[in-house]
Amino acid sequence: MENLCWKEECGVFGIFNHREAANITYLGLYALQHRGQESAGITTSDGKCLHSHRQMGLVADIFHENIIANLPGRMAIGHVRYSTSGSSNIKNCQPFAIEYSLGSLAIAHNGNLINDIPIRKRLVDSGALFQSNSDTEVIVHLIARSPLPTVEDRIIDALSQVKGAYCLVILTENKLIAARDPHGFRPLVLGRMGNSYVVASETCSFDLIEAEFIREIEPGEILIIDENGIRSIFPFDSVEKKQCIFEFIYFARPDSYIFGHNVYMVRKKLGELLCKYCPCDDAEMVIPVPDSGIPASIGYANCAKIPLELGLIRNHYVGRTFIEPKQSIRHFGVKIKLNITSEILKNKKVVVIDDSIVRGTTSRKIIKMIRNGGAKEIHFRISSPPIISPCYYGIDTPTHKELIASSHSVEEINKYVTSDTLGYLPIEALREAVSNPEEYCYACFTGKYPLPFPKEELEQLNLFRSLR
Amino acid sequence: MENLCWKEECGVFGIFNHREAANITYLGLYALQHRGQESAGITTSDGKCLHSHRQMGLVADIFHENIIANLPGRMAIGHVRYSTSGSSNIKNCQPFAIEYSLGSLAIAHNGNLINDIPIRKRLVDSGALFQSNSDTEVIVHLIARSPLPTVEDRIIDALSQVKGAYCLVILTENKLIAARDPHGFRPLVLGRMGNSYVVASETCSFDLIEAEFIREIEPGEILIIDENGIRSIFPFDSVEKKQCIFEFIYFARPDSYIFGHNVYMVRKKLGELLCKYCPCDDAEMVIPVPDSGIPASIGYANCAKIPLELGLIRNHYVGRTFIEPKQSIRHFGVKIKLNITSEILKNKKVVVIDDSIVRGTTSRKIIKMIRNGGAKEIHFRISSPPIISPCYYGIDTPTHKELIASSHSVEEINKYVTSDTLGYLPIEALREAVSNPEEYCYACFTGKYPLPFPKEELEQLNLFRSLR
Amino acid sequence: MENLCWKEECGVFGIFNHREAANITYLGLYALQHRGQESAGITTSDGKCLHSHRQMGLVADIFHENIIANLPGRMAIGHVRYSTSGSSNIKNCQPFAIEYSLGSLAIAHNGNLINDIPIRKRLVDSGALFQSNSDTEVIVHLIARSPLPTVEDRIIDALSQVKGAYCLVILTENKLIAARDPHGFRPLVLGRMGNSYVVASETCSFDLIEAEFIREIEPGEILIIDENGIRSIFPFDSVEKKQCIFEFIYFARPDSYIFGHNVYMVRKKLGELLCKYCPCDDAEMVIPVPDSGIPASIGYANCAKIPLELGLIRNHYVGRTFIEPKQSIRHFGVKIKLNITSEILKNKKVVVIDDSIVRGTTSRKIIKMIRNGGAKEIHFRISSPPIISPCYYGIDTPTHKELIASSHSVEEINKYVTSDTLGYLPIEALREAVSNPEEYCYACFTGKYPLPFPKEELEQLNLFRSLR
Amino acid sequence: MENLCWKEECGVFGIFNHREAANITYLGLYALQHRGQESAGITTSDGKCLHSHRQMGLVADIFHENIIANLPGRMAIGHVRYSTSGSSNIKNCQPFAIEYSLGSLAIAHNGNLINDIPIRKRLVDSGALFQSNSDTEVIVHLIARSPLPTVEDRIIDALSQVKGAYCLVILTENKLIAARDPHGFRPLVLGRMGNSYVVASETCSFDLIEAEFIREIEPGEILIIDENGIRSIFPFDSVEKKQCIFEFIYFARPDSYIFGHNVYMVRKKLGELLCKYCPCDDAEMVIPVPDSGIPASIGYANCAKIPLELGLIRNHYVGRTFIEPKQSIRHFGVKIKLNITSEILKNKKVVVIDDSIVRGTTSRKIIKMIRNGGAKEIHFRISSPPIISPCYYGIDTPTHKELIASSHSVEEINKYVTSDTLGYLPIEALREAVSNPEEYCYACFTGKYPLPFPKEELEQLNLFRSLR
Repeated sequence: MENLCWKEECGVFGIFNHREAANITYLGLYALQHRGQESAGITTSDGKCLHSHRQMGLVADIFHENIIANLPGRMAIGHVRYSTSGSSNIKNCQPFAIEYSLGSLAIAHNGNLINDIPIRKRLVDSGALFQSNSDTEVIVHLIARSPLPTVEDRIIDALSQVKGAYCLVILTENKLIAARDPHGFRPLVLGRMGNSYVVASETCSFDLIEAEFIREIEPGEILIIDENGIRSIFPFDSVEKKQCIFEFIYFARPDSYIFGHNVYMVRKKLGELLCKYCPCDDAEMVIPVPDSGIPASIGYANCAKIPLELGLIRNHYVGRTFIEPKQSIRHFGVKIKLNITSEILKNKKVVVIDDSIVRGTTSRKIIKMIRNGGAKEIHFRISSPPIISPCYYGIDTPTHKELIASSHSVEEINKYVTSDTLGYLPIEALREAVSNPEEYCYACFTGKYPLPFPKEELEQLNLFRSLR
Repeated sequence: MENLCWKEECGVFGIFNHREAANITYLGLYALQHRGQESAGITTSDGKCLHSHRQMGLVADIFHENIIANLPGRMAIGHVRYSTSGSSNIKNCQPFAIEYSLGSLAIAHNGNLINDIPIRKRLVDSGALFQSNSDTEVIVHLIARSPLPTVEDRIIDALSQVKGAYCLVILTENKLIAARDPHGFRPLVLGRMGNSYVVASETCSFDLIEAEFIREIEPGEILIIDENGIRSIFPFDSVEKKQCIFEFIYFARPDSYIFGHNVYMVRKKLGELLCKYCPCDDAEMVIPVPDSGIPASIGYANCAKIPLELGLIRNHYVGRTFIEPKQSIRHFGVKIKLNITSEILKNKKVVVIDDSIVRGTTSRKIIKMIRNGGAKEIHFRISSPPIISPCYYGIDTPTHKELIASSHSVEEINKYVTSDTLGYLPIEALREAVSNPEEYCYACFTGKYPLPFPKEELEQLNLFRSLR
Repeated sequence: MENLCWKEECGVFGIFNHREAANITYLGLYALQHRGQESAGITTSDGKCLHSHRQMGLVADIFHENIIANLPGRMAIGHVRYSTSGSSNIKNCQPFAIEYSLGSLAIAHNGNLINDIPIRKRLVDSGALFQSNSDTEVIVHLIARSPLPTVEDRIIDALSQVKGAYCLVILTENKLIAARDPHGFRPLVLGRMGNSYVVASETCSFDLIEAEFIREIEPGEILIIDENGIRSIFPFDSVEKKQCIFEFIYFARPDSYIFGHNVYMVRKKLGELLCKYCPCDDAEMVIPVPDSGIPASIGYANCAKIPLELGLIRNHYVGRTFIEPKQSIRHFGVKIKLNITSEILKNKKVVVIDDSIVRGTTSRKIIKMIRNGGAKEIHFRISSPPIISPCYYGIDTPTHKELIASSHSVEEINKYVTSDTLGYLPIEALREAVSNPEEYCYACFTGKYPLPFPKEELEQLNLFRSLR
Repeated sequence: MENLCWKEECGVFGIFNHREAANITYLGLYALQHRGQESAGITTSDGKCLHSHRQMGLVADIFHENIIANLPGRMAIGHVRYSTSGSSNIKNCQPFAIEYSLGSLAIAHNGNLINDIPIRKRLVDSGALFQSNSDTEVIVHLIARSPLPTVEDRIIDALSQVKGAYCLVILTENKLIAARDPHGFRPLVLGRMGNSYVVASETCSFDLIEAEFIREIEPGEILIIDENGIRSIFPFDSVEKKQCIFEFIYFARPDSYIFGHNVYMVRKKLGELLCKYCPCDDAEMVIPVPDSGIPASIGYANCAKIPLELGLIRNHYVGRTFIEPKQSIRHFGVKIKLNITSEILKNKKVVVIDDSIVRGTTSRKIIKMIRNGGAKEIHFRISSPPIISPCYYGIDTPTHKELIASSHSVEEINKYVTSDTLGYLPIEALREAVSNPEEYCYACFTGKYPLPFPKEELEQLNLFRSLR
């Protein structure tokens, strides 16, 4: 049933009052490219009209000079997106731009709603026409149908009906509005650039455009930026913060500052804790699985006082269109991305560090490559706990069935991936790495969802899949 | 104000129960290409889902084998479109395909509604979200919002609210529905191909696919084709037939049979009548403006007993992307399409025949070319009356201001286009050319609109143009 | 054996001393598009360097503004091309541009050489590297290898070694050179445009750019245009003129003036002669096969005093990529291009006029369509004699085996195409239509080649086909 | 004058006797993508004909399934290329494929010749026509013009006339031939894959296709692989080995084994030696400039016993088409690729390690970024000596004028890049890192060229640049 879920990973950006709003948004998205490589879009406002360009592909391949030239105005929002859906297509690209009775409005969304299906069904039954399968469009329809007189009121009206994870940037003809859900699942930061305000999923966006980081946008906050300045409202009941711990483990860029921490520092700390909780006596070197395993490896190596070595080399030219040979050579899989440096591995007892194990198939191939490279002993260490449950809030983890740790013990996984020993970071260690551990969502490691996904509604998803 | 009108020319096609439905639709559209060269689209149904492909460009350039292969099913509809709007884009391409509470539905429309703006405003005010500027989407929303239980009922409900010109082909998962407005402004014909039914804007579509012409779909008729066979309903009050006379003069293909006549025969007849009403003594030859002026020229030449000569040659390789040189050479205009055969013109008194004069600028260039070619006298004859009013029902004539005959006398036009004499076919002659002259709309020649376009509503159009 | 021959149809254009040389060349080629629709190219000289752009496709689709902007200079040559070779590719596109010991040189060629194979073999044996399969490249190598000191001398040296049909336009850094073979197989005309000189395959090129026609370039003439003006040399022994009669019958544009005649006038005359030599008593109408059959039909109809009728309508939207449906519907063939107007044909005795019959398959389909349209009697008349032999001089006629008239009598062909009677224009009538009939090549109708194609050399062609 | 040099970096691959030769070559090139990202090409032989596809772009974007399907045969060669020339275009893409008197031949070349210009001039003077500006084409012409009877003899004849750096893979209808110049400037390795032989620039190619490394191809060796097996000839006088030391410093992939060493191990060793020769007391951490500075940083950090930290983070999504904003925001330069992790840098004394300094501009930006990030002291260490001279043998280093170290002292460079101290690895330390230091070319560090590039010939280059 779970594979019915619509999952997507995204990054958002917004800017108010800059004469090169589209250009800056392009750069801001460029720095957020790791949050979604499938499509990108920008909508600008020239004060009267909205102008949009959305396309499948990478930011730098989409936004050529002439396209940016056709996105006039001093306000803009942007979006990058990756989706697990096979039918990923241009209709689901964001920002969503609409005309409604108050004028025009565009919206970009990072996160996943969990009650969009029943709302969607209700809307469709009353004659609403949906352009896409995206949960974001539900918010758009709720805004359009709200009887309230101002766009701010309508946004509050709409958001009070939805549940789930959302960081939104919304553009009207003359306002930039940012909103973060009451639990604060996903990150959203505020910055300044001369007389302009900027919002983004991560601070690495600000570094590229040389914007100054002001603060994080709070869970439950709605921030309105217009010609009168900037103001915040907190229209919803306050609930517990449930920030996504997985942003630290894998998703966010190491140079970003989110949830009160620098990501790289947290990752290195996870490596140190991993060394403490899962040591490996007499290991001769630490081998990171590049690139995401490197920070934890540095922490581990420092703590264990053994050298870090590049026993695995990553080929960064992996194209989106790589085609595997059909016949005699099969299953390149990870070899396309990684190769070993066998000279360094030969007859060595090594610790291999990765940030997580999802299905186990990639880990198995990596361990086998290293074994073939001549390593004597391979001790596999993971800088996060076993992932046992899918994420419903905006990280593209697969279903229970595919998550190896949801049905296998650590020892079974160790056997499957063919390492000599396997060690996961315990969840209590993970909580040690951050300053307010109770303010995070650990659902993928615990199965305890702060906002449960209603099973009966999942079944109705089928009703909405007949049109392509 | 008139330039607010959304105008488009289109062709539609539909087929029920053929194992190559997409392929046949592609061919059917190919034969209707003259009705719209800007975009084309096909939607098929495989009995469960609808599958669509819509693209800017010519039919033969869009529907490659692999695209047709991705359009499975035994039912299909298709659409070709030309639009006067500058913001012509993919969103306005048809068929429109939606999901709504009864399932999926796609619609292709030829014609123009005249009360779509107030309905659209009402729908938007109640929260409807529009994807496009097209009047067709209004019908789609009305169907989606209708409280009635079946798609047929909802279509009747929707069509009872709209006024204007429409020939529709509608596809659901298991039905093909065709509808023609009560006045019957635009043509729509029904055919058979083995066990399949086909509908199309013109019979030339049937000739290419070797389908047999059954009959025209009647004004006000709604035809439903499904596994139970074919049935007709006439749910609206009967009104006068007002078929578009301009289809005969210019728009339809000469080999088509519509409104009870073969188009070529009507055109030739118009030429004969033109000869009778606007003779030219001692003319030595008749020169058609190719290609559309040829049938009337044949009629004129036969009647006048003077030879037809190809004094104007058309270059059919005119690309859609032709770029005029920027600097020293300017205003190629009609020369890109037409050249003269000066040997035949030299020192001759000639009758030049065209089907109509719109702005007068092209006619002026043609007359000057012929004059430069050495013709001694040029007598310009038009096989239709002066066009004095724009069309609101699906022909892309320009606004009053641009129509030369709306503000100039025949003598003034003669002076402007630099012909020696100018003669238009009188409207009474035009009525002679068809068998039931009262069953036609002559609004472009008379300014008397069978369905008036409400002025006050035009002003509201501005509200709906802010989003691009 | 004949299918080894490399055949191509082409058009050439050149201009000297115009500040928009590339632009004018683009227009000139545009008017010559009928001579080759497969590829087009332009080379300009800015006085120091040559700049080229060559591409598969139509002129208007290739030469966008930015491409023309990258073709600077006041001199240019251009080429359009159609080739029968399956391996048609960009390498064979012209103009050919090379660097050699005297500098840079580009060449565009219309016609076919007949002794290029032995020369090519000799050049390859001595180490020459060929980029293409084109006979034109042989001329280029001969120029590059000539020991003579000036480009004019080298061109004469090269052309004195080749035999066959050629109209060449050659561009160096500062000269435009035009050459026509001693027999003058193909047309080449000279014009003036202010202070600029232009050369082109046909005068229709001049009409579009508003250049004044000066004269035809003579067989055997080499014309050199540079800053010192224009001068002619006639370096070769004088031989009989052998101008291609087929240019009049089919290939050239009707509005062009070549070989001392207007093409349309010749074609109409052929129709009149056809009426005289192959009359058809009691026929009720003349039906042209459009577009090329129309001028002869006008001549025939005038002469026979029966009306011309558009019983066949041509669809001009035939794309280059038209795909036939795969399964149930087959062999569209001519139906894609032509449809009948059955109303006019019903129960009529008609004369159908085409310019030629090649394989007979298309004619058969046309006759059958007209028969299905209800015509009572169909009398097929051809405004040229039976084609019994392939052309080796630049017209893409197929091999003996494929030419129906090379192995079948007129009566057999009549039976095959299913007409009631079939009449060809006799060759003596063809000779009547031009003023100096002895100055033409009739090889396709007689098999008597002014320059025989050496059979033993054909066999060697195989040696040069191994690289793709 | 130096900017006249034609410089390119390349990778080559070849395979003999594999039923998926094109596929394997595609993979082999994919692993060599770091050696050239501008264009790629594959030529196969099916025993009778050669088949080629060459295109601008990345390997994975070019070789789609259908393209590989059109490259039949059991033998193939491939090439990836990067060129400094502005006029980089498809004509210069390799493999070069020609027809000549012995049949067909294709060639792929890594390296640069130094006497191609006078040979080219001689060839052009005798009428040779060149398709490209590439030095490789000189070899091709020499082979084509050689009077010797076999392809092997002709290759020896051709190579005996050229001087410079070359690793060649040559394909005929039935042979694969590899050749490495007598000095052995560039790497070339031989491997086995079942019954197939493979050759490649680096062993990382073999790892991906799971081929076994046999040995390096020797300087001066010509290796012929055909149905009779594999044989070597050494036709040239033996000279000193002069392998490119810069392959170790920067160019080759760290997981490759070339010149008797694993690249990563050499790089790490360079870092250790850098620590010994240019220590930095009390430094708190080592910051690598990613990715190429990481191995040396590991060596340095281990040796200095201070931690390695990711103070610089690389964005790997840098597209080839990245466009900088035009107006207010300028000179992104290195920020597009690198960002700092300021938390780790704040108030720290850091050692920053890069592999080399070329112009100094990038280094200056990196140092300034780190300074802005809050670092207290920045000690810049380079794991190679100052680059004072351009490379003529296949590495794309710029001209003297642009090489900052060719005209500035270390102290001046330190001031320019704004580091606190700057240390380069001394050349004697570089020689310590490899086992036979006399067998390497150090020309870029010393200006002593094993094969001098003749100045007088450079001037003639101008003659060959007039055609585009």
